Amino acid sequence: MHDGTLLAAVDLGSNSFRLEIGRFEHGHVQRVEYLKETVRQGSGLDEDRNLSQEAMQRGWDCLARFAERLAGFPRAQVRAVATQTLREARNREAFLARGGDILGYPIDVVSGPEEARLIYQGVARLLPQSDERRLVVDIGGRSTELILGQQFTPHAVASFRVGSVAWSTRYFADGALTPAAFQAAEIAAKAVLDEALGVYQPSTWEVAYGSSGTAGAIGDILTAAGGPPGLITRAGLDWLCDKLMRAQHTDRVRLDGLKEDRRPVIGGGVSVLRAVFDLLGIERMQVAQGALRQGVLYDLLDRELPETDLRTTTVGGLMQRFGVDAAHAQRVSQVACALFEQAAPPGSERAARKLDWAARLHEIGCRIAHSDYHRHGAYILDNTDAAGFAVSELHHLGLLVLGHRGKVRKLEVDWSDAQLALQLACLRLSVALCHARRPPDTEGITLSRKGTKFVVSTRPGWAAAYPQSAYLLREESAAWQRTPWELEAQLR
Amino acid sequence: MHDGTLLAAVDLGSNSFRLEIGRFEHGHVQRVEYLKETVRQGSGLDEDRNLSQEAMQRGWDCLARFAERLAGFPRAQVRAVATQTLREARNREAFLARGGDILGYPIDVVSGPEEARLIYQGVARLLPQSDERRLVVDIGGRSTELILGQQFTPHAVASFRVGSVAWSTRYFADGALTPAAFQAAEIAAKAVLDEALGVYQPSTWEVAYGSSGTAGAIGDILTAAGGPPGLITRAGLDWLCDKLMRAQHTDRVRLDGLKEDRRPVIGGGVSVLRAVFDLLGIERMQVAQGALRQGVLYDLLDRELPETDLRTTTVGGLMQRFGVDAAHAQRVSQVACALFEQAAPPGSERAARKLDWAARLHEIGCRIAHSDYHRHGAYILDNTDAAGFAVSELHHLGLLVLGHRGKVRKLEVDWSDAQLALQLACLRLSVALCHARRPPDTEGITLSRKGTKFVVSTRPGWAAAYPQSAYLLREESAAWQRTPWELEAQLR
Repeated sequence: MHDGTLLAAVDLGSNSFRLEIGRFEHGHVQRVEYLKETVRQGSGLDEDRNLSQEAMQRGWDCLARFAERLAGFPRAQVRAVATQTLREARNREAFLARGGDILGYPIDVVSGPEEARLIYQGVARLLPQSDERRLVVDIGGRSTELILGQQFTPHAVASFRVGSVAWSTRYFADGALTPAAFQAAEIAAKAVLDEALGVYQPSTWEVAYGSSGTAGAIGDILTAAGGPPGLITRAGLDWLCDKLMRAQHTDRVRLDGLKEDRRPVIGGGVSVLRAVFDLLGIERMQVAQGALRQGVLYDLLDRELPETDLRTTTVGGLMQRFGVDAAHAQRVSQVACALFEQAAPPGSERAARKLDWAARLHEIGCRIAHSDYHRHGAYILDNTDAAGFAVSELHHLGLLVLGHRGKVRKLEVDWSDAQLALQLACLRLSVALCHARRPPDTEGITLSRKGTKFVVSTRPGWAAAYPQSAYLLREESAAWQRTPWELEAQLR
Repeated sequence: MHDGTLLAAVDLGSNSFRLEIGRFEHGHVQRVEYLKETVRQGSGLDEDRNLSQEAMQRGWDCLARFAERLAGFPRAQVRAVATQTLREARNREAFLARGGDILGYPIDVVSGPEEARLIYQGVARLLPQSDERRLVVDIGGRSTELILGQQFTPHAVASFRVGSVAWSTRYFADGALTPAAFQAAEIAAKAVLDEALGVYQPSTWEVAYGSSGTAGAIGDILTAAGGPPGLITRAGLDWLCDKLMRAQHTDRVRLDGLKEDRRPVIGGGVSVLRAVFDLLGIERMQVAQGALRQGVLYDLLDRELPETDLRTTTVGGLMQRFGVDAAHAQRVSQVACALFEQAAPPGSERAARKLDWAARLHEIGCRIAHSDYHRHGAYILDNTDAAGFAVSELHHLGLLVLGHRGKVRKLEVDWSDAQLALQLACLRLSVALCHARRPPDTEGITLSRKGTKFVVSTRPGWAAAYPQSAYLLREESAAWQRTPWELEAQLR
């Protein structure tokens, strides 16, 4: 990426949607523009976890305004991520499909741990270089992320279903700021966050940072009241809590530094932060400037090159975690990518990278059982924490893993997606060619695509030299029958 | 188990059902009785993998006859196992439920690898003591098991969907024994068995054994034709194949040693065995006396004591494979089992053992992701290879793992099963008590059961000393609401 390139991140949070545009300069991203709208979509989930029509409409309206600003940005320079509310919403597909159309860019739902990782990137990039061991606490609208890290590396990430919007709705629904409400809210928050205790002990970090809206708002209030700038102390929190209880109701709270859009969720936010202070033994917390959206911007930079793409590292980690036969995975990947390169249109580098990952992971399910291991692999990818990946990307990889053997026609995929069909064909052909778990003789084997037909052909004599491989390629040709695609095996 | 005890194993195979009764004497099991009926249930699966009514009825009729012989055997001395046909049959529950009632003992469906392990036990126990490295090949009606082992230990087990009944139905349906049919059957068998190549190389074993009906029948024919007793050679196989092709049709085959009930499936059996010989480079194979049913009998012996129960070892292996925090698992198991002992009726030792296993495995899903790890754990247990376990046992453990957190009332379990309800309550209470991942103070904590009500109570002062634990126990009490059971927390 050359200096001066513009990058944009959209954060569809549970409390607010934000748009951050930055310019890449000398290895850093300088802010060009920042828009924030308090959409509060997180309070629009009904009992069945469906997003109400109004909450969807508020989101779409906001995205339409962001879209106007983003018009003309190349796709590789924009990323939109959605978090807890859309992780939870059962009808999220409806919102995401139209939302992506309106915005003009796809919206990636990211998992809790991935959100935590991105937050840490954002926080760490905007802090001075230092070796300090950090705890980062990000209290969002419906989730709270805890991260331990040093320099640019997060060592522990976790996400909990506790947040300012959710806790305000649940414990301060009528706006009454009673001691009983604070007590109930804090006990409940501690119960949810309790599991963090084992990992996030006071001995594991030196400096605590608070990112995002809740920490920022509380920091602003304490600073306005005469505290040191950007510092939240336990005494300050107690003072603030006392102030809120004295006001008795959110409508009557008079505090310098408290913005109007924060007022309705201040009760939930303060109670969650107090629970975190208590539980993790925090005395002082610095308000951090960086947040999720900055993490997303720096991630866009890293993804540019395969060498710095975190996802490649993550795939290696998954291979290790599930004991994959790395030599075979590497072999299958090489053959698959070589076939893909022959048949794919120019500009398919990113799709090739995904094929490489899927090939490396195609046997990941064997750790569960050899029988149906392709299904177990897809299950793992649909459910695992994988740093750098969006939920939809993992699902795409999972589809390739699921489809790498067995009946093609039974796969539930969008067959109009030519890139996916080609990835699948290449992976399946490669697995067939590598059946003996040795480097196969692929000299003279070519793959081409004409319309909805793939043609794999061999050099003369190949089929006689490798009868089992030839048998498997013929089987593969048969496997594509009754799909919208055809795979012809021209074996000689 | 004292000398003279009678043990019985029922093997519900795809080709035949068998009943073996043995007497335990001086560490060995001596045959008392052996019944075999050619039920050929494996040819009764329709295209949708449903067992036809006729095939079910044939099975039930046979089980009724076995039941008459078994009447009066204590439950711990009988085990019935079912293999590939019932692994595949979609409507197996219908067959198993009634079949278990008719037989008078539950029928355990075992996985392919578990079948292979049991076969190896059976083969190894009936062979002379030796250090030889063995390959055991068991061609059944619908599956073929391959095992590498030494002494009583199997080092590699695998199960493939190839068998004498299935291959006869598919490639010799009209009874014609043509060269083309043999060729097609062998190529197809090799394609399925191909993955075995990597592990079952000729260098990995010294002596090959063939167990079960197909190997026995072919051995009988070759011996009757003048070959050395119980030896199958490649030349002998070629001779037999030639004989079959000359006869042109199963009805016209005239061979000494060929039993009538073997005639319809000899084509499939011979072609699969030839494929195995070719693929694995076998020149000579000894017919083994032991088989699945003997393995089941010796397994019954081993299960008697916790120390020799293979399942305990398997649980340890799973913990390791999925990186379980062993100290925490041990802690949760101890507390859960101590509670269980207080509230369970006498004679619940086997149920306590299962609770111990579930507790040790309750965090197994964390290797996939921390989020929803209880679901991932249940998924793993429903799908993994676990030596010594029946499919239904693993599902039972999976239910406990799934139910150890989250909403009790949403669990789909048979609530009339008091033992399961108690196991679940003990596991959940233990997880709550161990929440801080330290040994909890459980002094004076008691659990009792009165009808459908569990009562957990503490010593005076405990609730004040451990407010978070007390909170969690109250939450646990609430979690059982809207289930047929009640859990009262008497906290003091």
